[in-house]
Amino acid sequence: MSLNLQYEEIGKGFVQQYYSIFDDPANRANVVNFYSATDSFMTFEGHQIQGAPKILEKVQSLSFQKINRVITTVDSQPTFDGGVIINVLGRLQCDDDPPHAFSQLFVLKANAGTFFVAHDIFRLNIHNSA
Amino acid sequence: MSLNLQYEEIGKGFVQQYYSIFDDPANRANVVNFYSATDSFMTFEGHQIQGAPKILEKVQSLSFQKINRVITTVDSQPTFDGGVIINVLGRLQCDDDPPHAFSQLFVLKANAGTFFVAHDIFRLNIHNSA
Repeated sequence: MSLNLQYEEIGKGFVQQYYSIFDDPANRANVVNFYSATDSFMTFEGHQIQGAPKILEKVQSLSFQKINRVITTVDSQPTFDGGVIINVLGRLQCDDDPPHAFSQLFVLKANAGTFFVAHDIFRLNIHNSA
Repeated sequence: MSLNLQYEEIGKGFVQQYYSIFDDPANRANVVNFYSATDSFMTFEGHQIQGAPKILEKVQSLSFQKINRVITTVDSQPTFDGGVIINVLGRLQCDDDPPHAFSQLFVLKANAGTFFVAHDIFRLNIHNSA
C-alpha cells in the first residue's frame, strides 16, 4: 500500500465525524465502532488502554454529559501503509466546568477499504495557562 | 516485527535527546540526523515538508537562538511495526518572546536496529489561553 493523497480530507472528515458522535451524550458509546477489538491503543490522560471493549468501558465511565468543543487546528499526514496521522488541538468545556485546551492525536490505519483508529492519545492541557 | 515493549523508555529518551540538540543553537542543525532523506514528514505550524534536506532548511531558517523549554507530559504508544508514537506537551520561550504552550508529535520508525522520525507535527498552541 502507498501514500493516500486524500489525507487532508480524510483527517478533517474523520475529526468532524468522530466528535459529532463523541459530543452527543446519547450517541457517545458508538465511537467504539472506530476502534479494533484488539489492535487499538488509547492513552486517555496518561491512562493506557488496549482494545475496543476496554475503550468502550472508559468512554462509558466519563461522567459529563454536554461537551462544548472548538477545534483550533487539524494537522494530517499520510503514512506509507495507506493510513493517516491526525493531530487535533482545540478547547472543550464539559457541562459547567471551565473550558480547557485539549490535544488529541489519532492514527487511522487502512483496513479492507475503510479505516480504524489504531492509536488515540488524549490530553487536557491544563498546565498551559499556568 | 512486533510491539517494542520498551516504548515508554524509548519515548522519554528520544524526547530528552532530541530537545537537548534542538534547544542548543550551536547544535540545532544536527536534529536533521533524526530524519530520513526521503521518508520523513514534518508539519511545522501547518507548513508541510518532506525529507531531511528540506527539514534542515526549515530548522536553519528559525530566527531565535535561545529556547527555554518545559516538558509537561510525554505519552508514548508502541506500533505493530516496532515503532513508537510520542506525544509531547509543554511550554517554550524563544529568546525574549512570551512563553507559549506547544504540542509536538513524533512517530519513530524502526530501521536496522535504530529509529528515525517518520512523522513530526509541531504546533504552538497560541489560542489556548484565549
